[in-house]
Amino acid sequence: MSRKVTAVEVARFLEQRDNYIILTHASPDGDTLGSGFALCSALREIGKKANVVCADEIPKKFQYLTVEPLDFEIRTVVSVDVADEKLLGDLRETYQGKIELSIDHHDTNKQYAELLYCDAKAAAACECIYRVICELQVNITPHIANCIYTGIATDTGCFKFSNTTAETHIIAAELIKLKADYAKINYALFEQKSCGRIAMERLVLERLELFFDNKVAVITITEEMLQSTDCDRSEFDSITAIPRQIEGVLIGIAIKEKSDGKFKVSVRTNEPFDAAKICSAFGGGGHIRAAGCEFSCSAEQAKLAILNHVEGLLKAEE
Amino acid sequence: MSRKVTAVEVARFLEQRDNYIILTHASPDGDTLGSGFALCSALREIGKKANVVCADEIPKKFQYLTVEPLDFEIRTVVSVDVADEKLLGDLRETYQGKIELSIDHHDTNKQYAELLYCDAKAAAACECIYRVICELQVNITPHIANCIYTGIATDTGCFKFSNTTAETHIIAAELIKLKADYAKINYALFEQKSCGRIAMERLVLERLELFFDNKVAVITITEEMLQSTDCDRSEFDSITAIPRQIEGVLIGIAIKEKSDGKFKVSVRTNEPFDAAKICSAFGGGGHIRAAGCEFSCSAEQAKLAILNHVEGLLKAEE
Repeated sequence: MSRKVTAVEVARFLEQRDNYIILTHASPDGDTLGSGFALCSALREIGKKANVVCADEIPKKFQYLTVEPLDFEIRTVVSVDVADEKLLGDLRETYQGKIELSIDHHDTNKQYAELLYCDAKAAAACECIYRVICELQVNITPHIANCIYTGIATDTGCFKFSNTTAETHIIAAELIKLKADYAKINYALFEQKSCGRIAMERLVLERLELFFDNKVAVITITEEMLQSTDCDRSEFDSITAIPRQIEGVLIGIAIKEKSDGKFKVSVRTNEPFDAAKICSAFGGGGHIRAAGCEFSCSAEQAKLAILNHVEGLLKAEE
Repeated sequence: MSRKVTAVEVARFLEQRDNYIILTHASPDGDTLGSGFALCSALREIGKKANVVCADEIPKKFQYLTVEPLDFEIRTVVSVDVADEKLLGDLRETYQGKIELSIDHHDTNKQYAELLYCDAKAAAACECIYRVICELQVNITPHIANCIYTGIATDTGCFKFSNTTAETHIIAAELIKLKADYAKINYALFEQKSCGRIAMERLVLERLELFFDNKVAVITITEEMLQSTDCDRSEFDSITAIPRQIEGVLIGIAIKEKSDGKFKVSVRTNEPFDAAKICSAFGGGGHIRAAGCEFSCSAEQAKLAILNHVEGLLKAEE
C-alpha cells in the first residue's frame, strides 16, 4: 500500500530530492510522455537532474515532447501515468519495487510506489502534473506547456470525451496563455493521417460488415492487411473506433490478427450495451464503452461466436 | 455603415425591445443555429417573445437545438453569425434593409444592420452571444448552455483550431458547470458518421490520387457518387478535409460536381501554400488555408488545370 499524498506534498518531496529517473508506461501515449517530459523539464528548471525513460520507442509524432538525456547517477525513481508495474514493459525488471513516487489518474492504481498522488477525477495524468508544477513555482516554459497540453488533448480526445471537466478547460486556457502550440499539436494528433493509415482505412471500409438491422458493425484487420498498408500499430486505436462511429450502430467490433496468429477483438458500445460484459463472456474485460478479449480460433469463427452472443443481447433489449 | 455596439449595449437594447425574429444564415451550421436558439431561449427567459428562422432546413443532427416557434407579430429583426445579407438565402428578400442588430464574429461583416456587435477575435458567434446573455443576467439553462457549446465546438473543431483562445476554454468551463451535455454533443458532431458518409469515404479513398512526390492529393466527387451513397451535403465539409490530412500532403484538392454540371474545387493547404491565392488564379477566393473556385469544364480538365498551376508553385518553393 502506498502513502497517499497531495500535489503540495509531491512538490515538497521533489524539492528535497535529486537525480530523477521518470518512468513512463510501455506502448507510450501522449499522456504518459507529456507527463514525463513536463515533469523532467520542470525539475531541470529548478536546477535538478532528471531523465525520462520508456520501454518502447517513442512514436515519431511525439518527438517534439522529448529532451536530451543528461548523464548522472539515478537516486530517485518516479512513475507517471503508470497504474501497474506490469505496464512498465521491459523497464519492470530494473525498477520494480524501487519506485518512490507514482503520479497517476487511474482509479485502479495498484499502489506499488511508496508515495502515491492519484486523482481519478483528473482527465489526464498531465492535469496532476500541472498541479505539481504550479506548486513547484517554476517558470512554465512553452515546452512544458506543450507537454501538458499534449497529455490532456490525448486523454480527452481533444476535450470531446465525458472525462473532460471544467478544470480541464481552465488548465487548457492557462496553457494557451503560456504559449502552448495547440493548433500544431492538435493537427499532428487528430488531423494528420499517414499514407499507411489512409490505405488501412480504405481496406477496412471495403470489408466493413453490418448485421442485425445495422446495429452491429464488424471490421477485420489481418496481418496481411497490416503488411500491405504499412499502417503503424500506434494508429490502430482510431481504426478500431470506426465501426461504432456509424450512425445507428450500437455495438462496434474490430477483429485484429496478432503476430502470434491469435485474434484480439475490440468491442466498443453505445448505450445500453456494456462492452466489458460482452468481452467477459469470452474471458476478456475492460470498460463499459470499450473492452477487449482474445480468440485462438480463426477470425471467421471469432466473428461468429461474438455475433451469436451479441444477437442474444439485442433480442433481450427489444 | 452600422453603429458599433458592445455586449452591454446589446443587452440594454434587447431589454427595451420585444417580438424578436432571429435570422440565421443559409446552409446552417452549429454556430449560427447555436447562436440563434441560445439568444431566443435567453430572450424567452426574460419574458420576451422570440423565434429563430433559417432559409434552409435544419439538419437532423442539430434538432436538439431547436425550440417550438411562438405566434406573434414581428417587431425587431436580429441576425446572428451572418456576415452579409446575401448569406440569408431565401430570407433575404423579406428582411434585407430591415435588420436592426447584427451579432457576428466575421471581420468581413458588411455592416448592413443599424447596430453591429462584432468581435473578430471570438472563435464563434456563440462567444459573443454568451457575453450578451451574461449581461442580460438571465438564468442560463442547460438548453442555452448546449446551444452555446455547440457553436463553439463547431467553429473551433472542438478546440482544435488556431482560432481557439484562452477565453474560448474559460467559456467552455462555465458551460460544463451549467450542465452542457458536451460528451453527447461532441459524439454527434465529431464521432458519428452516417452510412452514406461512410460509403462516400470508401469511394473517395478508392479514387484518391497523389501527385508530385505525394505533396498534392486529389479527390473527385461526382453526382453519381452522391446519389449512389446517399451522403448528405452537410457531411461534405469533413470529406473535403481528407486530402490535406494525409501526412506529407501540402495541397489537398477536392473536386465536386454540382447539380448544374459545373465543378466546385475546394483547396486546402499547409504552410507555405496559400489556398486563396491558388483559387484566385481561377477566379475564386477564400482564406489562406481553405479556399474555393469553380470550373465549367469536365472534372478531368479542371484537375489538369489546377495541377498544372500547383506544379509551378511547388517548383518555385524547391
